[in-house]
Amino acid sequence: MHQPRNETPNARTAHMKPFPGSKKVYVDGSRGIRVPMREIQLHPTEDSSGKMQDNVPIRVYDTSGPYTDSNVNIDLNRGLPELRKSWILERGSYDTREPSYRPVAGHSDPDIAVPAKRNVLQGHGSVTQMHYAKKGIVTPEMEFVALRENLDPDFVRNEVACGRAIIPANINHPELEPMAIGRNFLVKVNANIGNSVVRSSIEEEIEKMTWAIRWGADTVMDLSTGQNIHETREWLIRNSPVPIGTVPIYQALEKTGGRAEDLTWEIYRDTLIEQAEQGVDYFTIHAGVLLRYIPYTAKRVAGIVSRGGSIMAKWCLAHHEESFLYTRFDEICEIMRVYDIAFSLGDGLRPGSLADANDNAQFAELETLGELTLKAWNQECQVMIEGPGHVPMHLIKENMERELAACHGAPFYTLGPLVTDAAPGYDHITSAIGSAMIGWLGTAMLCYVTPKEHLGLPDKKDVKDGVIAHKIAAHAADLAKGHPGASTIDDAISRARFEFRWEDQFLLSFDPDTARTFHDESMPQEGSRVSHFCSMCGPQFCSMKITKDIREYAESHGINEKEALEEKLKEKGREFIDGGAEIYIKKAGSR
Amino acid sequence: MHQPRNETPNARTAHMKPFPGSKKVYVDGSRGIRVPMREIQLHPTEDSSGKMQDNVPIRVYDTSGPYTDSNVNIDLNRGLPELRKSWILERGSYDTREPSYRPVAGHSDPDIAVPAKRNVLQGHGSVTQMHYAKKGIVTPEMEFVALRENLDPDFVRNEVACGRAIIPANINHPELEPMAIGRNFLVKVNANIGNSVVRSSIEEEIEKMTWAIRWGADTVMDLSTGQNIHETREWLIRNSPVPIGTVPIYQALEKTGGRAEDLTWEIYRDTLIEQAEQGVDYFTIHAGVLLRYIPYTAKRVAGIVSRGGSIMAKWCLAHHEESFLYTRFDEICEIMRVYDIAFSLGDGLRPGSLADANDNAQFAELETLGELTLKAWNQECQVMIEGPGHVPMHLIKENMERELAACHGAPFYTLGPLVTDAAPGYDHITSAIGSAMIGWLGTAMLCYVTPKEHLGLPDKKDVKDGVIAHKIAAHAADLAKGHPGASTIDDAISRARFEFRWEDQFLLSFDPDTARTFHDESMPQEGSRVSHFCSMCGPQFCSMKITKDIREYAESHGINEKEALEEKLKEKGREFIDGGAEIYIKKAGSR
Repeated sequence: MHQPRNETPNARTAHMKPFPGSKKVYVDGSRGIRVPMREIQLHPTEDSSGKMQDNVPIRVYDTSGPYTDSNVNIDLNRGLPELRKSWILERGSYDTREPSYRPVAGHSDPDIAVPAKRNVLQGHGSVTQMHYAKKGIVTPEMEFVALRENLDPDFVRNEVACGRAIIPANINHPELEPMAIGRNFLVKVNANIGNSVVRSSIEEEIEKMTWAIRWGADTVMDLSTGQNIHETREWLIRNSPVPIGTVPIYQALEKTGGRAEDLTWEIYRDTLIEQAEQGVDYFTIHAGVLLRYIPYTAKRVAGIVSRGGSIMAKWCLAHHEESFLYTRFDEICEIMRVYDIAFSLGDGLRPGSLADANDNAQFAELETLGELTLKAWNQECQVMIEGPGHVPMHLIKENMERELAACHGAPFYTLGPLVTDAAPGYDHITSAIGSAMIGWLGTAMLCYVTPKEHLGLPDKKDVKDGVIAHKIAAHAADLAKGHPGASTIDDAISRARFEFRWEDQFLLSFDPDTARTFHDESMPQEGSRVSHFCSMCGPQFCSMKITKDIREYAESHGINEKEALEEKLKEKGREFIDGGAEIYIKKAGSR
Repeated sequence: MHQPRNETPNARTAHMKPFPGSKKVYVDGSRGIRVPMREIQLHPTEDSSGKMQDNVPIRVYDTSGPYTDSNVNIDLNRGLPELRKSWILERGSYDTREPSYRPVAGHSDPDIAVPAKRNVLQGHGSVTQMHYAKKGIVTPEMEFVALRENLDPDFVRNEVACGRAIIPANINHPELEPMAIGRNFLVKVNANIGNSVVRSSIEEEIEKMTWAIRWGADTVMDLSTGQNIHETREWLIRNSPVPIGTVPIYQALEKTGGRAEDLTWEIYRDTLIEQAEQGVDYFTIHAGVLLRYIPYTAKRVAGIVSRGGSIMAKWCLAHHEESFLYTRFDEICEIMRVYDIAFSLGDGLRPGSLADANDNAQFAELETLGELTLKAWNQECQVMIEGPGHVPMHLIKENMERELAACHGAPFYTLGPLVTDAAPGYDHITSAIGSAMIGWLGTAMLCYVTPKEHLGLPDKKDVKDGVIAHKIAAHAADLAKGHPGASTIDDAISRARFEFRWEDQFLLSFDPDTARTFHDESMPQEGSRVSHFCSMCGPQFCSMKITKDIREYAESHGINEKEALEEKLKEKGREFIDGGAEIYIKKAGSR
């Protein structure tokens, strides 16, 4: 039996270890709220007199959850601490019952027990964050988000109330550390996992999840198919500090033996409830694939490339009826609102090649998603909108503008867009380019793409590469949007670079392990990490010192820098250099 | 002795082999001009009746030179065929003499002989491409470029005449396959090599050069320092089908033992001539670093990060004089014009951190580069302008606009820009994001950045990763600019993807080796490359087939697609599906 149950409790694997040079700190709010952050300790700076000046530690947004807090016991069998439990119970009234799911013969492995059984909650009426926000109530989740992003709690409430942001937070996922998806917040990144069908998959999927959040994934979608879907998801949610998303039609299709035409509303509805009870935080629902839009895809180069979209297209054609996702949408909302599951309205007709970008099929579906957004909001359900896909750079802006207009400002959640079709093996890069641009333009969350896209299933390395490429894109977007505080990390790393604080450069980077390894490959000697030069030029030349010399001169003469410079330039030229002030050269790569 | 001389002539190492599934073809022009292209053979498509329909081979721009033509003998000792020799001799009048360079004790290894001695040419007056273009003459180089990019030869001539494009082509580099750098041409990519000081470096550098052009580098800069600079460069140029650029101040500095303040105009001038005689095609010259601009860098986070910039800043401060690169600029032009070496006016004060982007220092220097552009044009010298650096996305556009305005439309050649400082280890990605954007806005050539940027010296893997990331950026820019023919490759690969022609997907990609490896990791079985499914979803589901079924129906009924669709939707729904028409699902990663 390969399953987490048999692991030693609290045994942290390497990918769950606290980050080197960092500690987990908590920012306290009201009501016992404690918001985790990663605090990076910096080395001191040597000033002109040779004295060491401390550098203030840098706090960064931390998606990695309790795994990187050495004070928390990790026991995958028990799941993470139930951070939100009291918040949820205090504010609402609920039915409490045993889960309705029972293992189905042939669809799950009876040997794979789920974590400790527990009762599930269902609200009496709407219990969504939007519901409370509209009533003017700042929930602990909103306050948590506000502290996490250094915002005013009532600002967060207002963004959720008007639908411009969502806080995906199923009442049955009390382990969640709340986060927000909206264009006035930091740009977020989603990582997809799942899909294995072999026995050991549960362990592997938990490992991928903890690995993805370690590198910055803000949410994780479990796209598992095949056997043990329910059990895999249960293990994931109980151990996930980030929102978990799913595409329920995948599991519904498993229940019909893979025959799309045999899908029914009842099978789908029961699947929604099964997953709702487990605590899934958002559902991708391709309710905008209408019968009349399918012909628009006939002349496409790449047809329909969304799995959910093609399943529904097949159902529509087989029955010559509008999809039950569309006709039963109000009933779906009635389920979503009593668990607080956010809609991720799927783009089933998104373009799968540049040639198909921004076509009728895509934009017709988008209009329908806008219509459904209003229906969902009418029931106080939270909504985000999924977007493409494959789009050349000059057509990206239209996607963002149309989404905002058609979908009334609901958050946009894009897959890429990939800016060329021609780079299989490197689609994390083609996607990072499009993601950075659309993030800047207002997209709230970026779905990662890994180097294996179009080619095969991502392994752990691919997951990390995909997450980091899109964290870069998201951060670049935050910088371009002028998000307050976004440049703190860039300024800190640039100062560390200027002062040759190598360790600090590693610690402040998106991936300290890789930065350190690359550096040490060229300069493996001990002591090289405190050297005032790089391997690229060697010790003789480097561009950094002249500015320092000028500053030191100004300081010691009690004049301001501008005057110091002019004085130096006029009178001290030769002397200035004679004092041994070498101009350091930063890197040989530079021209 | 580790040097190419001792290699077996015509022994191609793996990185010089022709591409699989491709052949080298030549497009014939006038005057015996033959322009190399890579022609990718595609597999046939099975039509609705089961018949195989041939697919037209795809021709792509090919930077890899004679190395990938199996009909050409490769002998590194002799160098590449002298393609341009007769063109050069026919059109100009020249002095012919032995090279003026003699090995300097301590500065080069007497054991490392240069390839077969040959005389050098020096024009009587201007022999630049701009000179001929202004006279209305379409040179063979211009025609070569026109055929290579499918443009009208006189259009090329006009772009060169007005300074909007350059064709770097030293008359002493007859081995060159001419290419153009300009914003109305395909966006180009430069790769930097060099910097090794050990004995085996020459072989390594030639290997890096052939490796870089194999993956698409359009030009190569040799940034070698230390010993054997001259010999390394000689081997490179004699074996390079792409323009070679250098930063002559590096070698000049070697001649003063590394003391910037000991540099003189005479040492520098002699270095220019030494390199001009070898055939360097463009020189980076940091002539815009003026004494009065240096104080602007005092308050920067990262000071001066350009090696050439900091060398000149040091010289200026030490002498309290304006740099000889600026004061002697007309004399420099007089050298450039008689060999046809293009200026790459260096951005010595470019920002090295986001905090320093678009500051006074950077833009003051840019104005001076504009002034120097006019001086160079006045002597019919070709010019491009180097650009930053580290710039957040929202400040990129201003860089392009200011460059065009200040520098009168001269081509822009940017390093990145890197859109965040915080991703050491992944700076090929931070740079690809900024490069794609600035390429779209009008930058003519992108200087690659490798994953080792800021950390260490790039190895072969880094060179490839850097080139491909920037080829993706350049191609994305071409697509966004609507360059004619840019989408051919994307459309071809998307059709191959839709039709499950796996081999064609690999061959059409930027990196067939990696695409094939990634695919085979998941589906190693023989036969999987003709499978009509991916490893990602398995054989049961895939989204591609519905479009095909609709098309086939239309074809067999002799009606147009739109009618076919409507008819199908109205009357044939169930039957359509019953016929076994599975909706294929493309990938599990999709939602």
